[in-house]
Amino acid sequence: AASSALLCQGALAATLNTQQLKTLENLKKDALNSDTSYQIIESLTTEVGARMVGTEAEKKSVTWAVNKMKALGFDKVWTEPVATPKWHRGEARVSIESPYPHTLVALALGGSVGTDGKTLKAPVVQFENLQALKDAKADSLKGKIAFVSYRMERHIDGHGYGMAVGARGAGAAIAAEKGAIAYVMRSVGTDTNRVAHTGGMRYQDGVKKIPGLALSNPDADLLLNQLKRNKPVIMSLSLTANPEPDAEVTSYNVIGQINGSELPNEYVTLGAHLDSWDVGTGAIDDGIGVGMTLAAVHHIAQLPQRPKRSVRVILFAAEEIGLFGARAYAKAHKDDMKDHVIGAEWDFGNGDIYQLTPGVGPSALNNIRDLATLLAPMGVSLSSENNAKGQSDMSALGRAGMPAINFDPDGSDYFDYHHTPNDTLDKVNRDALKKNTAIYTMFSYFAAQSDVDFRK
Amino acid sequence: AASSALLCQGALAATLNTQQLKTLENLKKDALNSDTSYQIIESLTTEVGARMVGTEAEKKSVTWAVNKMKALGFDKVWTEPVATPKWHRGEARVSIESPYPHTLVALALGGSVGTDGKTLKAPVVQFENLQALKDAKADSLKGKIAFVSYRMERHIDGHGYGMAVGARGAGAAIAAEKGAIAYVMRSVGTDTNRVAHTGGMRYQDGVKKIPGLALSNPDADLLLNQLKRNKPVIMSLSLTANPEPDAEVTSYNVIGQINGSELPNEYVTLGAHLDSWDVGTGAIDDGIGVGMTLAAVHHIAQLPQRPKRSVRVILFAAEEIGLFGARAYAKAHKDDMKDHVIGAEWDFGNGDIYQLTPGVGPSALNNIRDLATLLAPMGVSLSSENNAKGQSDMSALGRAGMPAINFDPDGSDYFDYHHTPNDTLDKVNRDALKKNTAIYTMFSYFAAQSDVDFRK
Ligand SMILES: [Zn+2]
Ligand SMILES: [Zn+2]
Ligand SMILES: [Zn+2]
Ligand SMILES: [Zn+2]
Repeated sequence: AASSALLCQGALAATLNTQQLKTLENLKKDALNSDTSYQIIESLTTEVGARMVGTEAEKKSVTWAVNKMKALGFDKVWTEPVATPKWHRGEARVSIESPYPHTLVALALGGSVGTDGKTLKAPVVQFENLQALKDAKADSLKGKIAFVSYRMERHIDGHGYGMAVGARGAGAAIAAEKGAIAYVMRSVGTDTNRVAHTGGMRYQDGVKKIPGLALSNPDADLLLNQLKRNKPVIMSLSLTANPEPDAEVTSYNVIGQINGSELPNEYVTLGAHLDSWDVGTGAIDDGIGVGMTLAAVHHIAQLPQRPKRSVRVILFAAEEIGLFGARAYAKAHKDDMKDHVIGAEWDFGNGDIYQLTPGVGPSALNNIRDLATLLAPMGVSLSSENNAKGQSDMSALGRAGMPAINFDPDGSDYFDYHHTPNDTLDKVNRDALKKNTAIYTMFSYFAAQSDVDFRK
Repeated sequence: AASSALLCQGALAATLNTQQLKTLENLKKDALNSDTSYQIIESLTTEVGARMVGTEAEKKSVTWAVNKMKALGFDKVWTEPVATPKWHRGEARVSIESPYPHTLVALALGGSVGTDGKTLKAPVVQFENLQALKDAKADSLKGKIAFVSYRMERHIDGHGYGMAVGARGAGAAIAAEKGAIAYVMRSVGTDTNRVAHTGGMRYQDGVKKIPGLALSNPDADLLLNQLKRNKPVIMSLSLTANPEPDAEVTSYNVIGQINGSELPNEYVTLGAHLDSWDVGTGAIDDGIGVGMTLAAVHHIAQLPQRPKRSVRVILFAAEEIGLFGARAYAKAHKDDMKDHVIGAEWDFGNGDIYQLTPGVGPSALNNIRDLATLLAPMGVSLSSENNAKGQSDMSALGRAGMPAINFDPDGSDYFDYHHTPNDTLDKVNRDALKKNTAIYTMFSYFAAQSDVDFRK
């Protein structure tokens, strides 16, 4: 009944013919009934776990990915080297010394320097947000520890992240410019757990590098409650991060595809990143992306016939420390980027997908409407925008001219777990995962079986 | 309108007269509009924080409690010594060595021995629950690490705890009897956070003392997923717990009361425990009990007149390591236990109270029905049982003959935070706290203003 309803939808343009629509409907059923994407995440998190750039586990993840793609029926699997910096987190020991001693839960921000074996002890100066820190007078933080207490807001599309993450990237450099000896911030996260959220930060040329750390939300609350009492709050802080400054290592993008039956040199691309931070097992960020993209291609590979175009999965290296894998891919594939017909990343957990936003040529928009019609029964609506440039890693390919589709999931709880020790397998919603995998499978088949030029 | 409705309730027996019922109704309003109980918890968790027996912070908590009671208008405040054992948690380092290396989040169980500076390395043997461990053959665990993977169930009345906690108390001794060199268990908790739940354990005379630890739920999952693959799983484990075995220290029950205007030597008692584990700030367990009981008496102390009987708050010492404060109190007050007319503890978080269960004489049951009628508009129903012996610390007084009332809250999420680093101020539900404080205020006034003999 579902498939006949679909075939009768008069609104469908002619992107796929009746037989192809039937195949697509079967693929949807396969994916909705399959646990494959979950099993891939289970395997990655159990057999590899955390896989931060430069670690043994990251090397293992590359082998794991190559083997997994082969086992899942990919036609061609290879790796491409990526030069990346390496950073070692070390241990953070942070506490309030006075007026009321407390041990605080903290994590270094990615890229932070350590304290060279010393323990810093200094008064804390609090700022409501990054702007307030920027507004502080020159030299006003001399010998102090700056603390930005801004709390990230929870929103379905995760836009609270954008409002909060600036303090993570730039806070330490700005604090250092004004004389601070260390920088601590409330974690960029929406949870109330006693675990901190890590994530990348940047130094500025010519500005002293000072340690940057994130406190868990409850610890930031506690620090605020002490500050409220109008007595000097003295913090002590030591961090063994980054014993190998400027170390560079080679990592690998892992790439696999099924070869198109008619247009093998045109690539529908699915992206996710293989690396993770070291604190959880990277189930959510981005094990789910790995599971969904590999499973989508696996389901299509089970068909008696390959679709016209190739479907390529790129598992990017070194996303967390600054999209190094994506940039390396865009550079290496400068000449054949024109053959990347369209791409979608998955790097945003697994809330239900509620919207798709294309970034295609005006005439291809008709075909995107066909896709949206096919996905509407799954709760996916079509955005009125046509400006997607690709999410996460795929933004590098989008900037290089590849058309993109963004699939937008309910991200309300994504930042409860993001970049924390809590990013583990039990957080994966198996039902939403099946549905989202089905959507990626359908999109991949749709784009690969058609011969639409998404640039036009 | 609310108070006239109350005064008209024909079902009320004559425990209180019209004027007293009016006072009670005003007390209810005061408590529902007051943030006092929250402010007390804020003060305790911010200015003292974790307060485990034998620590500096625990000493500070005694001074804090004495000062707080005085500031809140108590007539009489004193301390009574409690001899307790002392235990030091130290640091637990637990990891899976093979087949897939992982660092596991673990906490020592309270009372556990350490590993004497050594790192144990041994294969893990898994058991579904405590019974399965008991059923293992003698010597079958020689040189092994025993792992009980039982997962606590979530229930409104928290009865899943009773089903799970046996493995915490007795597991290590049973494993040791069969030759195990260490004992690890899935945390007794209903959350999915990467924090472990501590709590007390016991050794058995004549059985070797081996380390006992709890893994966080996600880490227990991961260990299970590795075991599922049917390769030997080797765990490594070191623990610096308990460097001072058998150390004994003196702690203090902190007791305060408002003196009764007519029957000052009869005591309506409210109990909570002042100590906490060292991993969180003890906001939920049992800062909430401290806040509710102190605020209840404070609200009554604001009345122009003291009620007939004294209302006494006992903040018990050393509950977590085995009810040492409660037992010391029962012993010290053997001779005047008859003057303790009725008592209620609060040591179960702050879900909404939905039921009261008395443990009183048959004729006093009529008066309890009056109380239940007064509390019915707050969503509190009367249990059909009349067998309460007092919760937590108060069980020691109940056993010594004091009538008791148990107030039963929705405990569905209590074991998400119980005995973890997540037990912090932000977990307190300020609205539920006001309501529950109002109920304790009403109960205290009701029992203190009446002259009912709850033993009869
Ligand atoms: Zn990511
Ligand atoms: Zn990330
Ligand atoms: Zn307790
Ligand atoms: Zn407890």
